Amino acid sequence: MAKLSHLDAKGAATMVDVSDKQATAREAQAEAVIRMSKEAFKAVTSGTAKKGDVLATARIAGIMAAKKTSELIPLCHPIALSKVGIDFTPKANAIHIRATAKTIGPTGVEMEALTAASVAALTIYDMIKAVDRAATIEGVRLVSKSGGKSGRYKR
Amino acid sequence: MAKLSHLDAKGAATMVDVSDKQATAREAQAEAVIRMSKEAFKAVTSGTAKKGDVLATARIAGIMAAKKTSELIPLCHPIALSKVGIDFTPKANAIHIRATAKTIGPTGVEMEALTAASVAALTIYDMIKAVDRAATIEGVRLVSKSGGKSGRYKR
Amino acid sequence: MAKLSHLDAKGAATMVDVSDKQATAREAQAEAVIRMSKEAFKAVTSGTAKKGDVLATARIAGIMAAKKTSELIPLCHPIALSKVGIDFTPKANAIHIRATAKTIGPTGVEMEALTAASVAALTIYDMIKAVDRAATIEGVRLVSKSGGKSGRYKR
Amino acid sequence: MAKLSHLDAKGAATMVDVSDKQATAREAQAEAVIRMSKEAFKAVTSGTAKKGDVLATARIAGIMAAKKTSELIPLCHPIALSKVGIDFTPKANAIHIRATAKTIGPTGVEMEALTAASVAALTIYDMIKAVDRAATIEGVRLVSKSGGKSGRYKR
Amino acid sequence: MAKLSHLDAKGAATMVDVSDKQATAREAQAEAVIRMSKEAFKAVTSGTAKKGDVLATARIAGIMAAKKTSELIPLCHPIALSKVGIDFTPKANAIHIRATAKTIGPTGVEMEALTAASVAALTIYDMIKAVDRAATIEGVRLVSKSGGKSGRYKR
Amino acid sequence: MAKLSHLDAKGAATMVDVSDKQATAREAQAEAVIRMSKEAFKAVTSGTAKKGDVLATARIAGIMAAKKTSELIPLCHPIALSKVGIDFTPKANAIHIRATAKTIGPTGVEMEALTAASVAALTIYDMIKAVDRAATIEGVRLVSKSGGKSGRYKR
Repeated sequence: MAKLSHLDAKGAATMVDVSDKQATAREAQAEAVIRMSKEAFKAVTSGTAKKGDVLATARIAGIMAAKKTSELIPLCHPIALSKVGIDFTPKANAIHIRATAKTIGPTGVEMEALTAASVAALTIYDMIKAVDRAATIEGVRLVSKSGGKSGRYKR
Repeated sequence: MAKLSHLDAKGAATMVDVSDKQATAREAQAEAVIRMSKEAFKAVTSGTAKKGDVLATARIAGIMAAKKTSELIPLCHPIALSKVGIDFTPKANAIHIRATAKTIGPTGVEMEALTAASVAALTIYDMIKAVDRAATIEGVRLVSKSGGKSGRYKR
Repeated sequence: MAKLSHLDAKGAATMVDVSDKQATAREAQAEAVIRMSKEAFKAVTSGTAKKGDVLATARIAGIMAAKKTSELIPLCHPIALSKVGIDFTPKANAIHIRATAKTIGPTGVEMEALTAASVAALTIYDMIKAVDRAATIEGVRLVSKSGGKSGRYKR
Repeated sequence: MAKLSHLDAKGAATMVDVSDKQATAREAQAEAVIRMSKEAFKAVTSGTAKKGDVLATARIAGIMAAKKTSELIPLCHPIALSKVGIDFTPKANAIHIRATAKTIGPTGVEMEALTAASVAALTIYDMIKAVDRAATIEGVRLVSKSGGKSGRYKR
Repeated sequence: MAKLSHLDAKGAATMVDVSDKQATAREAQAEAVIRMSKEAFKAVTSGTAKKGDVLATARIAGIMAAKKTSELIPLCHPIALSKVGIDFTPKANAIHIRATAKTIGPTGVEMEALTAASVAALTIYDMIKAVDRAATIEGVRLVSKSGGKSGRYKR
Repeated sequence: MAKLSHLDAKGAATMVDVSDKQATAREAQAEAVIRMSKEAFKAVTSGTAKKGDVLATARIAGIMAAKKTSELIPLCHPIALSKVGIDFTPKANAIHIRATAKTIGPTGVEMEALTAASVAALTIYDMIKAVDRAATIEGVRLVSKSGGKSGRYKR
C-alpha cells in the first residue's frame, strides 16, 4: 500500500526531513474557479473601478496567504518564496484563478500555489456573498510543478 | 445592478461597518470535498492509526484556520468564535468535509466555516500529494447559516 | 510628573486593566503623508489601472494591519474592530492617507487607526522605492477620537 | 514614465521575481522621530526604571515587527533576517529612532528597517498617548542601504 | 471514566461550544520557574540596565504570547483579554515568574496565563543559553482562577 | 562576569548578528514532562481513538509552534526549519514529550525544540484541565544539540 510521507513509522504526523534535499529552483501553478450568479458576476466585472477593487483585493489576499502557508498547513516547511503571482480570467459567470509560486529551496511550492488560489477564491466569495450566497469554489488543483527530485509534473 | 457591500461609494474596498448591528447567536456550515485516487484513498482510510492521524491533522488545521479567517480574508471582521468543529465522511475515493462555526456577535461566520473547510481540504492534499498529485478539491460552499438580520439560509 | 498608564508602580510595562471599563462606541481617525519625487508621484497616479493597484494594495495592507495592531504594539488590547477604512488624497507629489477605525468596546482604537495609516504609507513606499528611495513618511498622527471616559478629542 | 517594479505588464500588483538574484550580504538603516510634549518627554526619560521600560518595550516591538514585515507589506518577500537592532536618542522633546536590519539573501531589507522604526515609534506613542495625544511621528525614511545589484545608497 | 471536554462523542478533537456560557469577569494566575547556574543568575540580575533588559524583554514576550494563545493552543477560543501582567522574583539562582490574565467573557483565561509564563521563561532561557545551556524550566502550573460556572480555584 | 550575547555594549536587547556565521546542519532535542492525576492520565491514554486525538492534537500544536518560535521569542532569528518531530511516552501518570528540530542554517534550533515541547505540553494541559487543574509541566530543557561553532552538547 502507498506510504504517506507525512506519517512516521508509527503512523504519527511528522514534517518530512528535507535536510539532505538539494536547494533547486522550484515552481508550481495551481488553479481554482469560483462560479457565481449572473448578477454577482456583473457586479464583479462591470465598471473599471469596481472590477479593479474586487480582484485587486483577492489578488493581494492570495499573495499574502501564500506567505502564510506554513502557518496554515501543519506539516509544511517554512519557505523563502521568491515570487507569487495571481491571474484572474472572468468567463461565463465564473472567475478562473491561476496562482504561481516560486522558490529556490529544498522543497516544493505546490501548497503555496494552492493556498494562494484558495484564499483568492474565498476572498471573492466574501465580497459577493451578500449578492450570491450560493457561489461555489470548484476545481482547486495543481496545474504543474517543476524542480526537485520528482521533476516536472503537468496535469 | 447589485451593489457589493465591501465597496464604498467610490468603488474602493472597505470593511462593512457593523457598529450598529445587533450581537446575536450566529452559526454557519460549509462543506468541501477532496477527490483522490483509489490508492490515496486507501492510504488515508486504512488502518486506525493512519486514518486517525491524517484526518486528525486536517481537523486541527481547519479549526486553527477558522481562527485565522480575519487575517486571511482582507475585509473580514475579527470574530470571537464560540465553537468550531469539523467532520469527515470518507466515501467513494473522496473525503467529504463539513465545518461548523458559531459566534455570538454582530456579524456572520460564513467565511470562518468556509476557511475551515478549505484549509482542512488543503491539509489532506498536502498529506497525500506524494501519492496523488492530481487530487482535486471541489464544491467548497456554504451549506447553511442562521442568525443576524438576513436570517436563516439553507442551500 | 505625568504618570504613564502602561507602567506599573515599579515602572514595569503592563497592559492597562480594562475589565471595569464600559463597552461604548469608539472611533478614531489618524493620518500620514508620504512625500515622493515628481517621477514617483506620476507613476503612482497616472493611468487608471496603475493608480488603482498601488493604492488598492496600500488600502488592503492598511486594513489588514489595523487587525494586527495588538500583535504589533505590545501593550495594546485585542479589539473587535467593527470597521476600518482608508482614504487617499494625492496632492502635490504626496499621498495623504486618512485611516478610520471603529469598535464597540472597553478601549479606544487610536492605535488601530495609526497602525493602518503607517502600514498603508510603508506599502506605498515599498511600491515606489525602486523609483524614489528618498520618499519620506511624515505627520503620522491622531486626527480625532470619540467614545470612552476621556471623550472626544480633535487635533 | 518610471515603471513600478511591483506592477506587472497589465498593471496588476505582483511580487517581484527574485529567483535569479544573487544572495549577497545586505544591510539597511532607517529612521523615524516621535515629537512629544515636554511633559511626555520627561515621563519617558526621567528615572532609570521608567526610561528603561518605555524604550525597552519599543525596542522589542520594533525588532519583532521587522520579523513580521512580509506579513504586513503585501509584496515583500519573506526574509531570513540575520540581525535587527534599534537605537534611541532622546533629544529636544523627541525620541530619534534608528533601526538596522541585515540579511544574506537575494533581496534588500529596506522595508524591514522602515517597519522596525515605524512600529517602535508607534509603541512609544501608545505608551505616552494618555499624557500627550498630539505626539507626532515624523521623518520615517531610509538612511542607507548596501548590497545587491543597485549597490550602496546613502541619503 | 472522566470525559475530556475537548473530545466529541466519537473521540475527535473539537472546540467546546461556549455560545450559551455567560460572559463574566474571569482571572487566572499561573507560574513558572527557570533554574540556572550561579553565573547565569549573576549575569541576569547584576547591574540595573542589564537586569532591566533581560526581564523587560521576557515580560514583553510573555504579554504578547498571552495574546497569541488561541493561535498556539488548537482548541482555545479567541479571547478579548482585558489585562495581562507578569512579575519576576529572582531568588536562589532562579527566576520565579508569575503571570496574570483577565477577561470579561464566556470562557476562562487559564491557558493565557500559562502561555504567558511559559514564553517568558523560554525568553529568559534564550538570553542565557550561551552562558548556561542546562538551565531548566520547572513548575509551570495554574496558581488560581476565578469566574465562570466552575468558580474559584486555588492551588 | 559572563556576558549575555543578546545584550549590546549598552545593555540593550539586540538580535545577535549571524551574517558571518556558516550555514551548517543543526539539530536540537528538547524535552518536557506533564504530570497529571491518575484519572486524567487514564482519560488521555485509554481507548485508541481518544489517546490518538489528545496526543495527535498536541503533536500538531508543537510542530506548528516550532514554526512560530521567532514570533514568540523576541530575539530569535527566523529559521528555515527542515524538520520538526514530536514523540510522546506515557508513563506513571505523566506524558514525557521529546521534540526534535533541524535546519541547515547559520544559527541553532534549540529554541524551536524547546518551544515545540512547551506548547505540546500546554496543549495536553488544555485538554485535561477540566479533569485535573493541578497538572504541572516540569523539566522543560535542552537534551542535546549539534552543529555550529559551539558544536555538540549533550545533557
